[in-house]
Amino acid sequence: MWLNIPSNSDFSIHNLPFGVFKTTDKGPRAGVAIGDHIVDLVAAAEHNLFGKRRFFKKVLEQSTLNEFIALGKPVTNRVRRKVQDWLSQATRPDNASAILCDRHSATMLMPVRVPNYTDFYSSIEHATNVGKMFRPDNPLLPNWRWLPVGYHGRASSIVVSGTPIQWPHGQLLPKGQETPVYGPTQQMDFELEMAFVIGKESPLGTPINIENAEEYIFGLVLFNDWSARDIQRWEYVPLGPFLGKNFGSSISPWIVPLEALKPFRTKGPKQNPAPLAYLSQRGIKNIDINLEVSVTSPKSNVETAVVKSNTRYLYWSMAQQLAHHTVNGCNVQVGDMMASGTISGPTPDSFGSMLELSWGGSKPLTLKDGSTRTFLQPGDTVTIRGWSEKEGRRVGFGEVTGLLKQ
Amino acid sequence: MWLNIPSNSDFSIHNLPFGVFKTTDKGPRAGVAIGDHIVDLVAAAEHNLFGKRRFFKKVLEQSTLNEFIALGKPVTNRVRRKVQDWLSQATRPDNASAILCDRHSATMLMPVRVPNYTDFYSSIEHATNVGKMFRPDNPLLPNWRWLPVGYHGRASSIVVSGTPIQWPHGQLLPKGQETPVYGPTQQMDFELEMAFVIGKESPLGTPINIENAEEYIFGLVLFNDWSARDIQRWEYVPLGPFLGKNFGSSISPWIVPLEALKPFRTKGPKQNPAPLAYLSQRGIKNIDINLEVSVTSPKSNVETAVVKSNTRYLYWSMAQQLAHHTVNGCNVQVGDMMASGTISGPTPDSFGSMLELSWGGSKPLTLKDGSTRTFLQPGDTVTIRGWSEKEGRRVGFGEVTGLLKQ
Repeated sequence: MWLNIPSNSDFSIHNLPFGVFKTTDKGPRAGVAIGDHIVDLVAAAEHNLFGKRRFFKKVLEQSTLNEFIALGKPVTNRVRRKVQDWLSQATRPDNASAILCDRHSATMLMPVRVPNYTDFYSSIEHATNVGKMFRPDNPLLPNWRWLPVGYHGRASSIVVSGTPIQWPHGQLLPKGQETPVYGPTQQMDFELEMAFVIGKESPLGTPINIENAEEYIFGLVLFNDWSARDIQRWEYVPLGPFLGKNFGSSISPWIVPLEALKPFRTKGPKQNPAPLAYLSQRGIKNIDINLEVSVTSPKSNVETAVVKSNTRYLYWSMAQQLAHHTVNGCNVQVGDMMASGTISGPTPDSFGSMLELSWGGSKPLTLKDGSTRTFLQPGDTVTIRGWSEKEGRRVGFGEVTGLLKQ
Repeated sequence: MWLNIPSNSDFSIHNLPFGVFKTTDKGPRAGVAIGDHIVDLVAAAEHNLFGKRRFFKKVLEQSTLNEFIALGKPVTNRVRRKVQDWLSQATRPDNASAILCDRHSATMLMPVRVPNYTDFYSSIEHATNVGKMFRPDNPLLPNWRWLPVGYHGRASSIVVSGTPIQWPHGQLLPKGQETPVYGPTQQMDFELEMAFVIGKESPLGTPINIENAEEYIFGLVLFNDWSARDIQRWEYVPLGPFLGKNFGSSISPWIVPLEALKPFRTKGPKQNPAPLAYLSQRGIKNIDINLEVSVTSPKSNVETAVVKSNTRYLYWSMAQQLAHHTVNGCNVQVGDMMASGTISGPTPDSFGSMLELSWGGSKPLTLKDGSTRTFLQPGDTVTIRGWSEKEGRRVGFGEVTGLLKQ
């Protein structure tokens, strides 16, 4: 390989995630991350790396990947392999400087237009923790072990990493009172999640069989489901979270193809009771992805890691989520985003939200600069990182970061 | 006026709703309904009714109205006035046969691409009825009178009137049992709703002030929020309705501009307690729209009217819904659909769902052909109609109809 890639890079030759970027001299276009560089797919198409020069240039020179993804896995995987071949040459090709660009001088954009966004609730540890705080006798609701609980979220307010999040105002019920007030949230939180991106549409009225479900998954991103707990608590009965969530969700800019995660497959938790037939899966469906969340206070600008978790803790797999989502005939569309729900593990340092880390605000966390937090504060920055690693092979997601501005 | 319009037509000269249609010889295009005809807006643009011939032809010759609506009310209202002027001439213009087409030979399509769909719960009678069945002592939850409760629904499965709805399967908990089963819903229902279509986008992080909220509303449609009550009951705690709703929602094809409904403004129910400042509105915000639901069983093919209700019963206005939806900075996009929630009135014949009409399945309804219903059955067709009428002026929505196929 002719290109130098730092050994700890998330974007190894085994990864090759897709994103949309722009530079000072070029508009939005598709790219593939490699080490500290980006393969400009429009330039690569112009240099005929994929054949059908004009066709690929048109599909790749767009502000989202939707049209490219909709070509289907045979095409997108072929483009990925062609990039891999090009990078794997022994000597630097002549067109290298025309096709490569410096990753750190590019601006990453939302990689897809999201026609629909669904949020699941698939970590048993998270559901149990939240349940314990609100229903100590009966933490896990009766439906939870039978189906991947999920709900629809707001697609319009999903933003790419780096976009500041406006501190939300709304209706809150002060403790012990019966009359709500309007004001800024006092219980701002992150939620550590992953989301998958739909790569193939399904027709309305036709369920996706669990055996085929992964064919519909293009790839994965890191997902921060920002949550205002006090707004959520007052509004959410009986129809679920609304303004407590829809002021913003942040994603990492690079979509890691499902194929790149194959070496990191791992068994999920044993499911008891056994799922109904339509949710019964064969094979190894979970993925081992290390996840880390850090909080940076504006006081010091020093990061403090507050969560270390892993995607493998999830009780319900992506295939099960998708089979369930469509069992009633609900259709999916290219670019749809389906988030996992907060990914908490079994130990307190793996809890994926401030709500759980501070146990409902009762146990403050101390950051490296000495400041304490039960929930987040204006000016805080939250960063989620995720990566898989095995036998010297590293496939990472980069990061999703967001500053809370007042 | 040179065109004959039946006196009972929903599509009078005062209405002029926008839709998208196709015919055997012409592809999707924007149109305006008038009596038994459609004004083909592409042909009208070609005949220079609006000026900027090429620009309007391009914007109007599309499979959705999103781009046209995004031009803003000054432009869309001007186009509507030009159509009104053209129709109001004393003698039939030479270009009449080129511009008009027979409404009954056209196929209506989804009028907009819906980037986001929200469903409110704004009828106090409906919320109280549902509450009584599930919580007899405390039917209306504490938050209900303080904020327009709402939740996100599935945009992908919103279909235009006439599209058959596949009878959904899913997880159900049989009465008295603790283990769910997979099977077809046994409690299929309609919900009588209206929805408004967003005509102007708002930036993320910036609430819409209630005083300006109606500037963001392009127009209204009839909305049937099909619901599988048994699926919904088992899944919806704690995150809200999901598969009980997202297998399909049906809308009427013609979007009636908010401006056409101005003569039918009426005062809404008194709000007690007084809303917080951000929800406090001036002026007359409710609208008097007669609503009727009928059920047709496959046995006889005879329609039975089962509901007579009215939009004016709604407790929360559209302006309040929109101000609340964005108070936390949530953004809206052109084509977003916001439904009212089931519109029930004070008397049993005005209850807007089978759940309420049959009081949870305990009081069967008898249809004209003698068959009975607690909930809907496969093969049933549900039709919703809506119209405003005052001093000889009629502005109607046509209908939204859907057949439940097995």
